[in-house]
Formats: sequence, structure tokens, C-alpha cells
Amino acid sequence: MIDHAVYADLAQKNNNKIVLLVMDGLGGLPLQVDGLTELETARTPNLDRLAQEGSSGRSVPVRPGVTPGSGPAHMSLFSYDPVRFEIGRGVLEALGIGFELQPDDLAARGNFATADSAGVITDRRAGRIATDECIRLCALLQANTSLAEDDYQVFVEPVKEHRFALVLRGPGLGGKLTETDPLVAGKAPLPVEDHSGTPEGANTAALLNKWVAQARRVLAGEPRANSLNLRGLARDPGLPRFPDIYKMRAAAIAVYPMYKGVAKLVGMDVIDFEGDRPEHEIAALARVWNDYDFFFVHIKKTDSYGEDGNFAAKVHEIEVVDAVIPDLLALGPSVLIVTGDHSTPAKLRSHSYHPVPTLFWGADVMPDGVTSFGERAAERGAMGVFHATEMVPWAMGFAGRLERFGA
Amino acid sequence: MIDHAVYADLAQKNNNKIVLLVMDGLGGLPLQVDGLTELETARTPNLDRLAQEGSSGRSVPVRPGVTPGSGPAHMSLFSYDPVRFEIGRGVLEALGIGFELQPDDLAARGNFATADSAGVITDRRAGRIATDECIRLCALLQANTSLAEDDYQVFVEPVKEHRFALVLRGPGLGGKLTETDPLVAGKAPLPVEDHSGTPEGANTAALLNKWVAQARRVLAGEPRANSLNLRGLARDPGLPRFPDIYKMRAAAIAVYPMYKGVAKLVGMDVIDFEGDRPEHEIAALARVWNDYDFFFVHIKKTDSYGEDGNFAAKVHEIEVVDAVIPDLLALGPSVLIVTGDHSTPAKLRSHSYHPVPTLFWGADVMPDGVTSFGERAAERGAMGVFHATEMVPWAMGFAGRLERFGA
Repeated sequence: MIDHAVYADLAQKNNNKIVLLVMDGLGGLPLQVDGLTELETARTPNLDRLAQEGSSGRSVPVRPGVTPGSGPAHMSLFSYDPVRFEIGRGVLEALGIGFELQPDDLAARGNFATADSAGVITDRRAGRIATDECIRLCALLQANTSLAEDDYQVFVEPVKEHRFALVLRGPGLGGKLTETDPLVAGKAPLPVEDHSGTPEGANTAALLNKWVAQARRVLAGEPRANSLNLRGLARDPGLPRFPDIYKMRAAAIAVYPMYKGVAKLVGMDVIDFEGDRPEHEIAALARVWNDYDFFFVHIKKTDSYGEDGNFAAKVHEIEVVDAVIPDLLALGPSVLIVTGDHSTPAKLRSHSYHPVPTLFWGADVMPDGVTSFGERAAERGAMGVFHATEMVPWAMGFAGRLERFGA
Repeated sequence: MIDHAVYADLAQKNNNKIVLLVMDGLGGLPLQVDGLTELETARTPNLDRLAQEGSSGRSVPVRPGVTPGSGPAHMSLFSYDPVRFEIGRGVLEALGIGFELQPDDLAARGNFATADSAGVITDRRAGRIATDECIRLCALLQANTSLAEDDYQVFVEPVKEHRFALVLRGPGLGGKLTETDPLVAGKAPLPVEDHSGTPEGANTAALLNKWVAQARRVLAGEPRANSLNLRGLARDPGLPRFPDIYKMRAAAIAVYPMYKGVAKLVGMDVIDFEGDRPEHEIAALARVWNDYDFFFVHIKKTDSYGEDGNFAAKVHEIEVVDAVIPDLLALGPSVLIVTGDHSTPAKLRSHSYHPVPTLFWGADVMPDGVTSFGERAAERGAMGVFHATEMVPWAMGFAGRLERFGA
């Protein structure tokens, strides 16, 4: 795990640019014991050449054996240990739908639920109502609930199926807030309580309980989603800013809101652009090339196909990314990292804990004898197995962006 | 090093069983520069197949370069950093002889010593008296010392040569207690002092000093063992329980008391069985298979032969273990780890600090291209070099027993 203070002391500016190219869920597994992974199957002449000229390794996103969500996995890539820098689920949920969260906002993850006449929760997910239904219910709550008399704004935003995001905006929100979800059906929901003992915590808990009571009254006539629960009640954690630690102007190029959101949390600028394919992202990269020192480029579909269990489509998407590498290199990065935020083997149809194949390329990176980019090739690479938080620091070194430590 | 809180948060129950098969002192060295190690020499077709289907690596038991004792090495295997979770030598000594230590007992390691007429220690090991002599002296002390008037029980148990275990049982024992051993000959023994500043510490120090004075009077006429010292005065440290952290019912199958004792310290159930060979241990495993989720199986003789410098016998014992692997696999473990607690190269005739060859096997373990189980083969394995405390966490991942971390 990285000590930011060491790097903040040593970071120095120069003209060397670093690109962190993340193929979400890159790591895979063979479908049979003697088979190849998705990355090993893909024809990737450009990535193979980078591996040949650079150093390979495998990164552990959070902790041994731990499968990360997208938010924590990206925190690690940006060098923030997600165990130490905890981000509330409410904040991630709001960021994930592209909500423009402000630093003092309080965000919660909401779940529509079914309750009996006594208020006891009988289905914590309201039968996983359709997303359209979720959109209708959020509009209903937005129109018929209010904390205006307390001078707070309320935002109720649909996410997916039974899930929504709730954001409160106004002065003095915070505290250490408990969730209303009883976690099992057959129990009554709990009140929000504050465990911080601060006035702002008590105020925030009271506001949330008031809103929840209103919301449940509004929903009372609904056939399935006649109740709701709030989880992960939290504020933007106020993270140390990436550009301040590393003395780099940092840009994020991503299609999906979650990744833009996490980048914004650490102080990166999010670049707007048209299109959603890797070539559009590289075009955006070219456009802002002169304005930044560090570029986070996020490719989503590798993960989506992994989650679908679609081995072939994941292979193809990796090949699409390989095809844009020449255009990326033409921009003249000093250091290029190609990695994933975590593994999403098509075999497992989900995120996994498996270490992620990673390559470092640059003029001063040790060519380590690895001749292709892949999980098993990377086992023999110079970078070994390392925690993902070490990735940016290594790149800083390779880019000559760290002063000597001591005389 | 592992943060148990992270795993306690994420652990979830399922039906996947994990077996941790420990060949004590497994790691070895070649006798000549171009030779093979014990494990590399052994014919191990079953272990080789597991290596081929799974991932290999090498585990560091305590810290780089540090040779562990059996207690700390097993603490690491169970995911408890032995530097952080210090267990008094007295507790390990008592456990090592199979003493049924209770949670509030205070245990000490005792050494018989030779003193001159002024009480100054002239030989801290009493000329390494024979074990039979130790047994006689312990019986003598058991019969002729007592803290009954203070309502405490005393147990004096022989260990080996000049070493014995002392256990006090009764209310309010504890404190931060110093040792009586002056550590060099030619000095007087020290009193037990308490550095905790607690009433229980002061009480315990007084009881121990009272007992030591009695004991030295009882021994006064002995030709060699006419004095004694106490070291490592400690209680069961009250470790977080393995079954609570990992939500697994855990069973220990071991022949020697020390390993049963350490397993018991972390809350595992110790399984009784007849016989002392690997096949008896696998039979015991089969008998309790349905009652537990995690199984620690300990093989002792690999270490004993290493300590004897008997390369060939250690090779043979590894082959005996290889031969029971099919019976173990027939039980249907989801994840199998084969490792040692530390290295005991026959060449060195002692425990050593060398990283321990380790293999992970299971349906979701990456087949890493390693085709045999051995020290040099494991250098090329997917798991790299890792701290032994990470072993159980990785197995938890492979067994699908950890929830996703964050959204």
C-alpha cells in the first residue's frame, strides 16, 4: 500500500506524459484446464510488442482473494487503498448514474421494498420491479416529498430495477449514519441513527427519517414497491487530490458515469466527447493531449462481455483495443500502462479476485523477456505480483517524475 | 499481512470445503549446487498433477530471513501474523506437550539450572539433564510445592532435558511479567516483576515469586538441577477466533500436541483419531468431512527427518503423503492447499527461513503452466512470493466464500 506523503514530497514536474489504459475486467480464466484465457486468445500484435519492449506483472486490486466492485478497484488503480479510503455506497451509486454530486451532498443508496400492513418488510427488493417502474416511482417521490421547510434540497434518481439514489443538499450534513434495511425479510425497517455523536449527524439522521416517513406515505398505495430502505449513507469522503499528490494535471476519458465519477472524486478532470468506442476515446485523448500530464482511459465493454459470459465477444473487444494502440503511441506517451481494474472471467460471469495482467511500457522500463501480453506470460514478468496502488508510483518513476529520496 | 476485519466483513457461507494440508518443514535445499531438493527428488505424480491444474508459489512464514518456530509458523498459516499476535513461550510450551490449557491459565516455560551456594546461576541448563531426570524433578516439585493457601492450582509438567512447563490456575492471573533468567551464567536469577501496573499483574508476580522460592528450596539438595528459571510467562492471548473471522467451521487433524494446541488457540475443533500415519489422518478427515468447512491436516515427519538430516527419509515421507492425495480428492474439496509451515532442509538439519513451496488447487484456480510441485517449479508459479498469512484469504476467494468488496 502506498504512502501518498512520500510521493507528494518527491513528485516533480516534467514533460513526460503517462497513460493508464484500463480495460475493465481484463483478467480472465481458461474455460478448460489446458485452454487459454480471453486475453491469451485475442490476437494482439500491438500489445504483444509493448510487452516485449516493457515489463509485465500482475496486480492485486484490493486484498488477496477479495473481489472488488468497480469503485474500489479504480480507487486502487489511482493509488488510493480502498480499505483505507472508504467511499460510501451512496456516493458510488450517485456517481454511477452520473449525478453531479457536490462536496457537501449526502448520498444514499435506496432500495424499493414490499411491506405488509404493519410496515414489516416482506420483500427487500420489491420483486425486482422493472427499471421503468423505478423511473416512475422516483418521479413520484421527487414530486411529492420535500425537505424545503428545513432548507434542504432532495434528489431522487432511478438506478436500475429496485435501486435508486437519494441525495440531500444543504448545510451541515454528515455523521456516521446507520442503514434502515433490516437485511432480512420479516423484520420492520430500522430508523436512521447517528453514531458520530455530532450535531450534524443528529440533524442529518432526523432529516433522513423525516424524508423516509414522507416517502413511505407516498408509496403506500403501490402494489409492490410500497416501502423503501436507505443504505450506504455517506458524503464525498474528501480524498487527497491526485493532481496535488503527483503534481500532474490529470484527465479521465471514460464512457460510463461510475468511472467518470471516481476519477472526479480524486480530482481528475473528466473530458467530454462524442461516441462510445475505443477509437472515439483515443480521438478525445488526442484532442486534450497538450493540456494534461496523466490520462486515465477506460474501456468498459471487456467487463460487460465477461459478465455476460461471452468469451468470444470479450476476446474481440480486446482486439479492438489492440487496434487503437498505434494511434495512442503516435501521441508520444513516455509511459503507458495497460491493465484492468479487476478480472471478469467469462467463465465466472462476474468480477473476480484473480490478479490482473498488467504491462508497463516506456523508454526506461526493463524489457523483461516476456514476449506477449497475457495472464500466464505476465507470471514471468519483471513486475511480479504487486498491489494495484503501486501502479501509478511505478509509472512516476519510469516517467522521471520523482526526485531522488535523500542525498 | 492480513487485516482480519476486512475478511470478517466479507466472509459468506457456502458449501465449498477448503483443505489446508501442511507437511511440516516441507521446504528443502539441494545437497549440492546442481542437485535437487527433497520435494524435487520425491516421486509425486499426484501433487504434480495438482500443480499442473492449479497455481504454485512460495510463502514466507514470518518475515524475510526469519526462521520460525512451529507455533509462529502455524499462526501464519492460519492468517495470524505472529509478530502482531504474540503468544507467550509458556503457552506454546504447555500446548506443545498437550497440556489442556484453560483460557485464564498462566503458563511459563521453565528451565532447570545449576546455582552456586549464593544462588548465582552457574549453568542455565543444569548440564542438559536427561529427560528422565526432568520427569523425576517435575514430580518432586508437583508433590512438594503449592499455592493452595492462595487458592491457586499449580501444574509442573516435564518437556525435554532441562525444560519443563509451569501452569498456574485460578482467578485474576495476568500482567506483563518479566523473566527470572539472567540470560548469562555468573549472575543471580531475577525476581518476576510486573510491568503492567495492574492489580492482577502484581498478584501474579507475587504468586510466581512465592512458587519459585518454594521450588528452589525443594531442589536445593540436587546435584545439578538445584535451581530453576521461568521464562515466557503468559496467558492464552485470547485470539480472534478463526471460525468467527471466516464463517467456517474448522477442524484440525494432527498427531502432535503442539499443532493441536495452536489450532485450538484460534478456535478450531481438534479431531481425535487412532493411528499416526498420513492414511490415518485422511481416514479421520473422511469421518468428519460433513461436519466442517475448513480442514487443517498436519503431517509431522517431513520436519522430523529434515531435523535429523535424513534427506532420503524426508523424500520417502513426501511420497507417502503423495500416495494419500487421491483419497483426499475423493472427498470433494473445492480448494486444496498443499504447503509447509516452514522449510527444514535436511542439509541444514534445522528449521530455516527459506520460502515454502505451496500449491493451490481448485476449479477457479488459474492453471499457471507449472507442471510439477517443487521449490524451483514454484518460482514460476502464479502466486509468486507471498506472506503465509495470505494463504487462507486466497483460498477463501477460490472457494467463493468472500462477498464483493464495494459497489
